Amino acid sequence: VAPSFPMWIVENSAGGTTAYCGMNEGLGKVLRFGAFGPDVLKRLTWLRDVLAPVVGSAIKGHQIDLLSIVGRALAMGDECHNRNAAASSLLFRQIVPLIVASGAAKGGEVIDFINQNDHFFLNLSMAACKVALDGAANTANSSLVTVMARNGVDFGLQLSGTGSTWFMAPSPVVNGLFFPGYSQADANPDMGDSSITETFGVGGAAMAAAPAITGFVGGSASSALQTTREMYRIYMSKNPRLAIPSLDGSGAPLGLDALRVLDTNVMPVINTGIAHRLPGIGQIGAGICRAPAPVFNKAVATLWQKLPQNAFQFAKRAMRK
Amino acid sequence: VAPSFPMWIVENSAGGTTAYCGMNEGLGKVLRFGAFGPDVLKRLTWLRDVLAPVVGSAIKGHQIDLLSIVGRALAMGDECHNRNAAASSLLFRQIVPLIVASGAAKGGEVIDFINQNDHFFLNLSMAACKVALDGAANTANSSLVTVMARNGVDFGLQLSGTGSTWFMAPSPVVNGLFFPGYSQADANPDMGDSSITETFGVGGAAMAAAPAITGFVGGSASSALQTTREMYRIYMSKNPRLAIPSLDGSGAPLGLDALRVLDTNVMPVINTGIAHRLPGIGQIGAGICRAPAPVFNKAVATLWQKLPQNAFQFAKRAMRK
Repeated sequence: VAPSFPMWIVENSAGGTTAYCGMNEGLGKVLRFGAFGPDVLKRLTWLRDVLAPVVGSAIKGHQIDLLSIVGRALAMGDECHNRNAAASSLLFRQIVPLIVASGAAKGGEVIDFINQNDHFFLNLSMAACKVALDGAANTANSSLVTVMARNGVDFGLQLSGTGSTWFMAPSPVVNGLFFPGYSQADANPDMGDSSITETFGVGGAAMAAAPAITGFVGGSASSALQTTREMYRIYMSKNPRLAIPSLDGSGAPLGLDALRVLDTNVMPVINTGIAHRLPGIGQIGAGICRAPAPVFNKAVATLWQKLPQNAFQFAKRAMRK
Repeated sequence: VAPSFPMWIVENSAGGTTAYCGMNEGLGKVLRFGAFGPDVLKRLTWLRDVLAPVVGSAIKGHQIDLLSIVGRALAMGDECHNRNAAASSLLFRQIVPLIVASGAAKGGEVIDFINQNDHFFLNLSMAACKVALDGAANTANSSLVTVMARNGVDFGLQLSGTGSTWFMAPSPVVNGLFFPGYSQADANPDMGDSSITETFGVGGAAMAAAPAITGFVGGSASSALQTTREMYRIYMSKNPRLAIPSLDGSGAPLGLDALRVLDTNVMPVINTGIAHRLPGIGQIGAGICRAPAPVFNKAVATLWQKLPQNAFQFAKRAMRK
């Protein structure tokens, strides 16, 4: 049988873009962290054969406003990358009444699974960030970062003004906290597409919203506030739909600017899970890393080469305003 | 027909006490804020005839750990008096799978009501605080405050060491924000039993956990932090089960001490709803007030009279440790 896996469909109606993501499996021994034992495959099969049809039927014809959930969750202690307890609860509140109304025979089983997974929203958070950034891709002359991603070996970045070109550097080591029995020696360099959340401006950029995450990734309540304040220096704006109460309603950073990163030498903070360096084991911790400087140097150098010199200076000045 | 209304039963198993509370009706035109129009009565009838039987059957034989919900909610931006969005979500997640499993015919209707009420947990928060404090009542010589309550005219306080004696003063005016169309001129002085939450140490005492509430009751993120830091001066301890992430996991204040209130002249902060001064209208805003000093003066004077002089001094010194 050919492998198949159901997907969420996430649409950016204003930007005309669409993204897709799978159903979140939870933490620990899960496929997306490199685990692939019988229990992992069994769960994936159940997600495909039970959860996806039940949820798919239930939400058919309904739209779920993901950015609204992210906004409410930032007021409830999530940063929507490593902490999704509130967003998953809010999603649960939207989906479950629809499952109940659908009268699905296995609705109870699906409701229990979603209820026990405080990261169920994570995949939708990532897809929402992806679809928003795709809507800002391929803008001439723009130094907006549209993708940051890691594959465990390399860290890759794309700029809006340089299209689908990847700018690469070695993937960073994550400073973090480890699950019992694991240590830094077991850790793979940073891995995954999830840093699309920081590219958009939540996750590490919105640390101030989630002081409780410091118990999972390290740091303190004051360092969480300080991180978001620092990130404001390298993002273009503040998101008017994502207020952070601990900063008196100031919006989450919006629009990571490669030029500002170069000018300030402040690298984006990424909240991330830590995968074991050996295949089959999965997640062994969580922590914080910084995007590597060379990707920004390379990206801006390429953007520079594409621009007449005057246009570059003009764009740089315009962004400062 | 004699009036009847279903009740939650809340038990303090360690303390051997039991408390009761009704089902939360929501905000605005609701009975507990003095509204009693046809829509209010219709909702109450529905709560009695539909919601209560469905929830009652569903949770029969199950226990819901309310203090655990409060603890998680404090890490999700609630202070569990004026803001209960997270706690209501967490309660929803515990109750709804049970309703679904029960197969109740009107389960969907009940699920929709709970889902639309971000204060559904409030009554349980109050009852949990009440039952905990009842477990600490009637302790000889104790200056622990076990009740603070207001009836719209008077503010009343009870101490553990003085049993069921009420110490009274005029109910304070609430400084707050008003719903559109209303102002301070419409406001009744502070009213209700809900300040049992502050007596226990959440609500206004745990403001630091809920910076978003400042948009509802006034203040700022820094004043929210400052309020809890100030409250530590008049509570005996920190609650080890109620960590506040924005204070690096420091526990919510626990055990309001009338002696410390007198010594510091710091009055407890109460987050509260504002009722219209005319009957039938209901809630018109929310804000902050301070418990009135005379109730503490009177209570400690009575406690003093009950004690041999030496015992009083000894108790005072012991509490300082």
